[in-house]
Amino acid sequence: MQEKLDELKHRLREVYDLHGAAAVLNWDQSTYMPKRSAPIRARRLAYLQTLAQEKFTDPAIGKLLDDLQAYGESLPYESDDASLIRVTRREYEKQIKVPTTFTAEFGEHAANSFSIWAAARPENDFATVQPLLEKTLDYSRQYSEFFPGYDHIADPHIDRGNHGITTALVRELFGALRDELIKLLNAIKTQEQVEDSFLYRHFPKAQQYAFAREVAQQFGYDFERGRLDETHHPFETRLNWGDVRITTRGDDHHLGDGVFATMHETGHGLYEQGTHPDLDSSPLQSGTSSAVHESQSRLWENRIGRSRGFWEHYYPVLKDYFPGVLDDVSVDAFYRAINKVEPSLIRVKADEVTYNLHIMIRSELSIELLEGDLSIKELPDAWNARYERYLGVTPPDYSDGVMQDVHWYAMLIGGTFEGYTLGNILGAQYYEAVLAAHPEITDEITRGQFGTLHNWLKTNIYQHGSKFDTAELTERLTGGGISIEPLVRYLHTKFGDIYQL
Amino acid sequence: MQEKLDELKHRLREVYDLHGAAAVLNWDQSTYMPKRSAPIRARRLAYLQTLAQEKFTDPAIGKLLDDLQAYGESLPYESDDASLIRVTRREYEKQIKVPTTFTAEFGEHAANSFSIWAAARPENDFATVQPLLEKTLDYSRQYSEFFPGYDHIADPHIDRGNHGITTALVRELFGALRDELIKLLNAIKTQEQVEDSFLYRHFPKAQQYAFAREVAQQFGYDFERGRLDETHHPFETRLNWGDVRITTRGDDHHLGDGVFATMHETGHGLYEQGTHPDLDSSPLQSGTSSAVHESQSRLWENRIGRSRGFWEHYYPVLKDYFPGVLDDVSVDAFYRAINKVEPSLIRVKADEVTYNLHIMIRSELSIELLEGDLSIKELPDAWNARYERYLGVTPPDYSDGVMQDVHWYAMLIGGTFEGYTLGNILGAQYYEAVLAAHPEITDEITRGQFGTLHNWLKTNIYQHGSKFDTAELTERLTGGGISIEPLVRYLHTKFGDIYQL
Repeated sequence: MQEKLDELKHRLREVYDLHGAAAVLNWDQSTYMPKRSAPIRARRLAYLQTLAQEKFTDPAIGKLLDDLQAYGESLPYESDDASLIRVTRREYEKQIKVPTTFTAEFGEHAANSFSIWAAARPENDFATVQPLLEKTLDYSRQYSEFFPGYDHIADPHIDRGNHGITTALVRELFGALRDELIKLLNAIKTQEQVEDSFLYRHFPKAQQYAFAREVAQQFGYDFERGRLDETHHPFETRLNWGDVRITTRGDDHHLGDGVFATMHETGHGLYEQGTHPDLDSSPLQSGTSSAVHESQSRLWENRIGRSRGFWEHYYPVLKDYFPGVLDDVSVDAFYRAINKVEPSLIRVKADEVTYNLHIMIRSELSIELLEGDLSIKELPDAWNARYERYLGVTPPDYSDGVMQDVHWYAMLIGGTFEGYTLGNILGAQYYEAVLAAHPEITDEITRGQFGTLHNWLKTNIYQHGSKFDTAELTERLTGGGISIEPLVRYLHTKFGDIYQL
Repeated sequence: MQEKLDELKHRLREVYDLHGAAAVLNWDQSTYMPKRSAPIRARRLAYLQTLAQEKFTDPAIGKLLDDLQAYGESLPYESDDASLIRVTRREYEKQIKVPTTFTAEFGEHAANSFSIWAAARPENDFATVQPLLEKTLDYSRQYSEFFPGYDHIADPHIDRGNHGITTALVRELFGALRDELIKLLNAIKTQEQVEDSFLYRHFPKAQQYAFAREVAQQFGYDFERGRLDETHHPFETRLNWGDVRITTRGDDHHLGDGVFATMHETGHGLYEQGTHPDLDSSPLQSGTSSAVHESQSRLWENRIGRSRGFWEHYYPVLKDYFPGVLDDVSVDAFYRAINKVEPSLIRVKADEVTYNLHIMIRSELSIELLEGDLSIKELPDAWNARYERYLGVTPPDYSDGVMQDVHWYAMLIGGTFEGYTLGNILGAQYYEAVLAAHPEITDEITRGQFGTLHNWLKTNIYQHGSKFDTAELTERLTGGGISIEPLVRYLHTKFGDIYQL
């Protein structure tokens, strides 16, 4: 059995060496690549991904998994080897359903679509991307058909990034949460608005990055195994265990992304850097789902980075980075400003109350597109109508409307947004769990100390990589299932206080 | 036939997509990669290269080449398709002779040898690397045996990077050139030395790079299809036709590499950017040999970048980048300083007269090692004796002596140095040819204009990629063979003037 296990690991290492190589190409594409490299880069990325998929879906791996099945089940469930056999089997069964020709074709289309969107968005040019989106939708519906027997056409998509989560569960959770959020938002709208104009003073972005770098390091992000670079649309990427990179963006005239997007990506980076090195170059290596991943990025960005306690310690530090600029602003005023609730057009700039409404719009529209109830042509109007209904705002153009996010232009339609709100839900649940175990964390944060929190997350979540799926992990951490109650409690407490509800 | 040709092109594209992906990983490794990524990055690079070699030596490619042989010969020699079939056949025949097990084994040994050398060099510790070099020499002799029928054991090595060049030709050219150089050097030594201490003032390297960037752009390097980044050991790398990157390094207290290494890599970059885009992702895509490549880097760096005419235009520009620093230095004094001839220990810092002597020492010793006339144990003494004999200097230690260059410690012994001096020889020949066709170039350079020169090089050299080998190209450009006369003439004129010989 050892020999077969070794062969399985060897084959998986080759697969993940190809994924890791593709990750370098992808990172480069989003940071330093000259524009005119785009077409061939797209082809090469697609080719590496095809090779990886071919190697992963090689029948020899299926045979090895068959041979190792009983052995895997004889080992402790949590052990590396049992988990490797179990999770590889699960992913293998999914991937063999998707033809490599599909992946190659779609990969090339997606990379191409991405470059065209990047050029068309500033031009507010939906007409150019419309046919690309139509093709993407065709690919997305086709993808579902590789998984016959689904309950809902969006299920295979949601399951792709969040194993075991169904469209039905998403609708149930999101429906209940939406009602709560709209109620809270309406209550806030009746209150006096928060003053945040001082956040639009002159904050050179290089200084914002320098401050954020200091915070990231203090959170526990290891710069010897990572980097921080500037990009268009911030992301975190794992090249290997020793190389987990984050990116950010900033605006000299807004104290915003430069700090908070960096914290967000740091949260993702902490998760990947915290996985056990023995899991590297295998299906266990990474965070288990987009929902759990987002629970971490949002936890570090919002629960920590936008908390009153954090700024207790860090507000004076921040002011040192921008001498004189915030001298007339108290820490309380600053805290309220960075938590201002205001229905707006842009998801990534949204506050904690409205953010999930942005996600729900995208999730609902994706599902309707897949169902066939909505066409790409109708999408811009549907987008605008939904914004009006949930948030009371209407995009004046496509750039800040339907063309705002990269997702539909670089990935399949479906399953790519749900993780954000599921992540907020889970993050609140997990944070309640960690506070129950270590109530001292609240105080530590006010001293700029994050070790207890980081260690708990590492021990209980990060190190496991993908050993446990979202439901299993949530059960281990909370003793129950996914529940919106902790998030609703948290939002009511925090914003009830800020807006004196 | 068209179908077979298409299949050949498709297979070659996959091979070169893997090479191109490896080039991204390699560029990243030398520029931005976090240190702790190193071990896995090395494995992934090796894996991509193995995959590329496996795909290139696939018997299916041999079969296609057999089937296409007659067809290729029926087409015009210079046509893309005839050239593709001919050059692919040539490279295929070479590569199938080398077993993949040899490549893998030697690759592992070389990586190991490299890291031990990197640690041992600062310690001046030759004893530690000696057994590794002995093993490398065994591998190198073994490599030659894969090519039975050679005239000289070094032939297969020299042929590797410079198709068609033989050891006999190298010895003939280098022997004659060596005598000329030693004579010239001895004459220079009797003259008053050139003052260059002002080159060691404060020249912030970021400003050196900014100036060099301006020059590179004016030479014709296209930053929309390239980048300039900082690294330890400058190099140029082709990721694809739309992405040819150069790197440089600098020292705040020496106006040197920051400017001249950038010009050198720009020369390589112009060659690769100037290849015809239709040749991309095939064995024809790149510059034809290390010698012709080096002819271009040295031409732009030395014939242009260290010429009196160039600084006529650019010296005021340079001074603007470093306000006040060179106010007391005339353009004549500056020109002499950047062309100071001085026998030294370090190849990469050598001037145009002594540089080739450094190369000849390495070439001669490599050949003697391969022949068996010299043992690795005797190598340090042989190195020092040769430095004394040719340059009149003796290395005080191994670090700046026999352990100075990475080549022997990371590659096969043989064939890795000759291209540098062959490049200088060819560069002088080609420059005579271009001046004969366009005597106005001399004036244009004094006005900071390089279009005529760049266009001639593009039309006559760059666009062809690897269609013609070194001898064919030289015949096309000069109507004859490789000759040292133009280089000797150039050096006598230039340095005769500077040193008033």
